[in-house]
Amino acid sequence: MKLHGYYRSTASWRVRIALNLKGLTAHHLAHHLRKGEQNAPAYLACNPQGLVPTLEQDDGTMLTQSLAIIEWLDETHPSPPLLPRDPLARAKARSFAQVIACDTHPVQNLKVLNRLRQLGLPEDTVTAWAAWANTEGLGACEKLLAHEPGPFCFGAAPTVADLCLIPQLFNARRFGVDVSVYPRLLKAEAAANTIKAFADAAPDQQPDAE
Amino acid sequence: MKLHGYYRSTASWRVRIALNLKGLTAHHLAHHLRKGEQNAPAYLACNPQGLVPTLEQDDGTMLTQSLAIIEWLDETHPSPPLLPRDPLARAKARSFAQVIACDTHPVQNLKVLNRLRQLGLPEDTVTAWAAWANTEGLGACEKLLAHEPGPFCFGAAPTVADLCLIPQLFNARRFGVDVSVYPRLLKAEAAANTIKAFADAAPDQQPDAE
Repeated sequence: MKLHGYYRSTASWRVRIALNLKGLTAHHLAHHLRKGEQNAPAYLACNPQGLVPTLEQDDGTMLTQSLAIIEWLDETHPSPPLLPRDPLARAKARSFAQVIACDTHPVQNLKVLNRLRQLGLPEDTVTAWAAWANTEGLGACEKLLAHEPGPFCFGAAPTVADLCLIPQLFNARRFGVDVSVYPRLLKAEAAANTIKAFADAAPDQQPDAE
Repeated sequence: MKLHGYYRSTASWRVRIALNLKGLTAHHLAHHLRKGEQNAPAYLACNPQGLVPTLEQDDGTMLTQSLAIIEWLDETHPSPPLLPRDPLARAKARSFAQVIACDTHPVQNLKVLNRLRQLGLPEDTVTAWAAWANTEGLGACEKLLAHEPGPFCFGAAPTVADLCLIPQLFNARRFGVDVSVYPRLLKAEAAANTIKAFADAAPDQQPDAE
């Protein structure tokens, strides 16, 4: 398998954690987002959105969208599971992941921030927008875990919720958000930090890191 | 069950279609988004994001995020299925759904458009933003179906992909997008239009329609 990604893309990062937890290896192909490499025709043929990640299978099949890739990995390589077994618990883990993957990250990704810049908005307004998106999302995430003892988001092992949370906390800090107001999220992050699969997936561990 | 929603919310609409296809009934509770009712403290206790939908179960359990709700409905009420059986086909249907639910709808929802207004951008710029988000998303969706014969997005029966597509096409038209350039998406819409479960879920069929 090949994983088309970018070291600092949080959606690529989610998939890197999943691959590591499953003990799977993929050849990493970097597309430099800030240089616009994701818009090259050859890559658009792989992923018509011009976004990363894309998981390219050995037969050439292309899978896009990080959460769809993670569910596919979980269905085809079930151990260790990335979702709880009980349907209600699965729904809660998926919901948490989607607060980040649907309502937080896409509102502050490079494509949207560049669009704001094209509208003539100054850089401090663009950064404040990104911080706002993170604050809205992570604030909701903290509340969703109010009755979850942890230490991970949902229980004693990482789920898709943690795969989304850890990269998003990185983004929030990058945009100046004070994440100390999310103690329960930081508890989950501390638990993840003890696991090599998470550590190895971090941006600064990637070959294309700058 | 109770479905907290809003007649014109496309995320609520997706869940309404799923409930109808499964033959399930839910008491619909409307929260008028343009009047800000989703930000009332009583509703924020149900859904800390202040977004719709929320599916309230008979025991008071709250499920948020439309795709997580749809997966839960599919796992607990398997017939008819809303995802293909084969893992790769499931991944493709989920990916298509997420192009809309992650990268299209949240970039043009009321919360984001109101944020643009707060930045002082004129109304035509706000509408152009919403049209841009729809054009980016639906253009990618059209390409993802290039080799899918249909008539639905993925095969002879609706999946979660169609549940996301039909409401998004409504939004695209509302923001002035010329959807005639997406013939494959319109073919899926025509197939959905023959099914009562889709027709009954449309905004103008809801009690809170204006």
